[in-house]
This record gives sequence, C-alpha cells and structure tokens, in this order.
Amino acid sequence: MTRFFVQPEEMTSDTILLTGANLSHAKVLRLKAGEQVLVFDGQGSQCLCTLSDIQADCASLTVLERSQSTTEAAVEVTVYMAFPKSDKLEHVIQKATELGAHAIVAFPSSRCVSKPDEKSLQKKLERWQKIAASAAEQCGRSRIPQISVVKSYTQALEQAAQADMPILFYENEHATTLRMALDSKSWNTVSLLTGPEGGLEEKEVEQARNAGLQICTLGSRILRCETAPLCALSAVMYAAGEF
Amino acid sequence: MTRFFVQPEEMTSDTILLTGANLSHAKVLRLKAGEQVLVFDGQGSQCLCTLSDIQADCASLTVLERSQSTTEAAVEVTVYMAFPKSDKLEHVIQKATELGAHAIVAFPSSRCVSKPDEKSLQKKLERWQKIAASAAEQCGRSRIPQISVVKSYTQALEQAAQADMPILFYENEHATTLRMALDSKSWNTVSLLTGPEGGLEEKEVEQARNAGLQICTLGSRILRCETAPLCALSAVMYAAGEF
Repeated sequence: MTRFFVQPEEMTSDTILLTGANLSHAKVLRLKAGEQVLVFDGQGSQCLCTLSDIQADCASLTVLERSQSTTEAAVEVTVYMAFPKSDKLEHVIQKATELGAHAIVAFPSSRCVSKPDEKSLQKKLERWQKIAASAAEQCGRSRIPQISVVKSYTQALEQAAQADMPILFYENEHATTLRMALDSKSWNTVSLLTGPEGGLEEKEVEQARNAGLQICTLGSRILRCETAPLCALSAVMYAAGEF
Repeated sequence: MTRFFVQPEEMTSDTILLTGANLSHAKVLRLKAGEQVLVFDGQGSQCLCTLSDIQADCASLTVLERSQSTTEAAVEVTVYMAFPKSDKLEHVIQKATELGAHAIVAFPSSRCVSKPDEKSLQKKLERWQKIAASAAEQCGRSRIPQISVVKSYTQALEQAAQADMPILFYENEHATTLRMALDSKSWNTVSLLTGPEGGLEEKEVEQARNAGLQICTLGSRILRCETAPLCALSAVMYAAGEF
C-alpha cells in the first residue's frame, strides 16, 4: 500500500489533503479515486485512507481508520556519532533509521577530520532529515527519527547520560562487553556513542566515564566508524527482544 | 603495528620474504630494518617479525613469535546473500568481514534482478576476495573470509543446512524471532540467509523450511537487502558473547 508522510496537524481532520511532493508522488503512481493508502504523521500515528478525489493541484483522502504504529521499537535508542566524513554520516542515518533508532545525534570530538561549519549546517540538517524521512517511509516506520547536532563533546555526554543505559564504545576497552552493561539493569532508553575515523582520545573516554557513561567493547575486531553504531544498534534491538 | 598478509606456505620458514604489493606497501611506509611487523596467513595464524633487510626487489623478515589470532570469532557464521545489485554485495562483503563472518556466499533466487554471467564471474570473485582481504587487514582479522557463489538456490539451501543453526529471514514471518531460534539449542556454526531487493517468493521460503532451515523475523521494519544480513550477523555475534 502506498504510504505518505504529512505534518501532524494535517492529520487531525477526517479529510487529509495531499499537496506538493506527496501529490506529485500520487500522480507518478497514477493513483485513482477509491484506492487505499496509508498516511503517517511521522510521530507514531497512522491513518488508513481512501483516495476520494485527485485534481491537478490537490488530492483529498478520506480517513477510514486511525491507529498507532506497530513498527516502532518499544525501546528508545539514540545513536550518537562523532562527525565522520559526510557520506558515512548519511549512510548511518539511513541504516539507523531502518534499524529503528529513536534519534541520531552528531557531535564533535578531538580527532574528527570533518565538522560542518555553522553556515552549511542548516542545509545539511535538512538534507539529513530528508534521508531519515525517506528511509522511514521505505522500511515502514511511522515515526521519523530526529537528526540533530550538538556543539560540543561535553554537551553530547550530558545529553547521552540522561538515558537509562548510556554507553560509549572504545577499542581499547577489553573487559566490559555490551552484554555485561545491558544485563546489569533494566532499561527503556539507551544512548550509544561511537568515535570518529581516528578514534576517541583516552581523555575523552575518561570524560565520558566521569559523565556516567559505561565504556564497552564491541569485540576484538576494530570496526569502522560507520559500522560500529549500526552493529551496536542491531545488538541492542536484539537484546530488547525486537527480533 | 604494520600488518601483512602472505600465503600460508610463505609463512612456514623462519624468514619471510615480502614481495610485490607487500614490498611496495613497506616502502610507502618507509619501514626500516629493526622495526616490528605482524604477518598473517589469512587462515588464523600470525607471526610477530622484525624487518631484517629491505632492498629494491625484496624485504626479509625474521620470525620472532608465532601464535593463533585472537581476533577470530569462536562461532563460524556464514552469510548467504541473494545476488543484489553489485555495489550492495561489495558493501556487505566489506562489512560482514569486519563483523567477523566466517564466509560469504552469494546465491541466485527468483526475484534477483542482477546475476553475474559465467564470463564475468571469475573476475568479480577476485574483486570480491580482494575487498574481503582489505577489510580483514583494516579491522585486524587474521583470517580472510572466503567469498563464493553457488549456482542455484537449491544448492545454497543444501550447503546452508549443514550448519548447526541454519536460518532464513523472511519479512512475512512474524512468529519466530531470531532469539527464539538461537535459544532453542546450542550452536557453533550458523548460516544466515537473506533475500534480494524484491524479497523471496513464498515457495522459496517453503523450500527452505523443507530443507531444514528455521524461518525467522528480523523485526517489524522491512530492512533493505544490504542491511538485513549485517543486522542479523551483528545480533548473532552479540548472542555468541563476542561483545
């Protein structure tokens, strides 16, 4: 069934209008009056609708049934990733959305070789949010993870530490596994932090420990900066009973 | 420490010679006599060596210590992937190598849109094997996963079924989770099968079930064909206690 994302306020009445890119999409698919489609507000609610009318400038949908999505994970996992080169960040945004991340946060760290400047950041954030929206649509999610950027490593730690289970992965940690951390207490919200291409500095890892994060290993192989967050996210979703 | 892969037969004597691409690499790094390097046979053995001499056409290494690698997973997980478009297969080869796959097998299925012809296959296999070798070197593995192709879906199932825990992931399976399968008995060898862009056909899934494979879900979100094998592999490595 064809799927459309609209703004939450557009989904409140019994008739939903498709305009702009949604309308173009409906036309490309040659949708006809009477066909059923699914509409999402990007925040977890969905509507089953019938296309009642399609014109040059607008299509109208009649709401048949409202429900909460069943494709959202019960746990809220936020992926914190040190700025990598931009194609890698886009890759992680797409994949982490598919894998069910609640939100994705990019942060600066000492060895980041690539940090967007203030000027280009707004455009990039819009692009990243579009990548997340498109991945959410493709994989059947009803909620689009929010993509954001924090200005400092310290701020990333403070924000991450608010989760029930805040974890930083470090290649020189060999004793504490992710499983030990996850088994140590119950959790509904998880923060997963991973470093940039050149890794985190030891003093940054100490700072994370002091901020209340658990330092864990992802195994004896050194994962690339774009592989580590997706591996960790997959494992946490498995541990949470998602599959 | 710099790492080199050589053929197993080149690693048997107390002096190891670096030639060809390895020699070029040593020169680029400006390695000098007296420096220590690690040499791998690609099958799990490694040697700590001292560079004893470096000349225009050859460098010689003296073996200090031989050992078995500690970076290989204790479980043997083979990733079976229906032929996707080629950049996706290359992506999965690189990432599955990092994540510790024992071997990677590509197979044909009804809805595959891209199957290499016999003529180009040999060249492609060489290219794929090089991608695995390069990923193994980068992530610190001492063993290079073997990349192979089977000629039929039936052959893929027969080969996969030989593992202790052969699993096929199917988006229309909702009852049996990966965790239920993995918790059902003990296992040392695992086969993970995933479909192509367009998914597997229901009769193919039935055929897999009859061949002895467990049919499992990877959760309520539909993963892309290149995301599913890596998500499953990450979860199995976590379940195996790798991290």
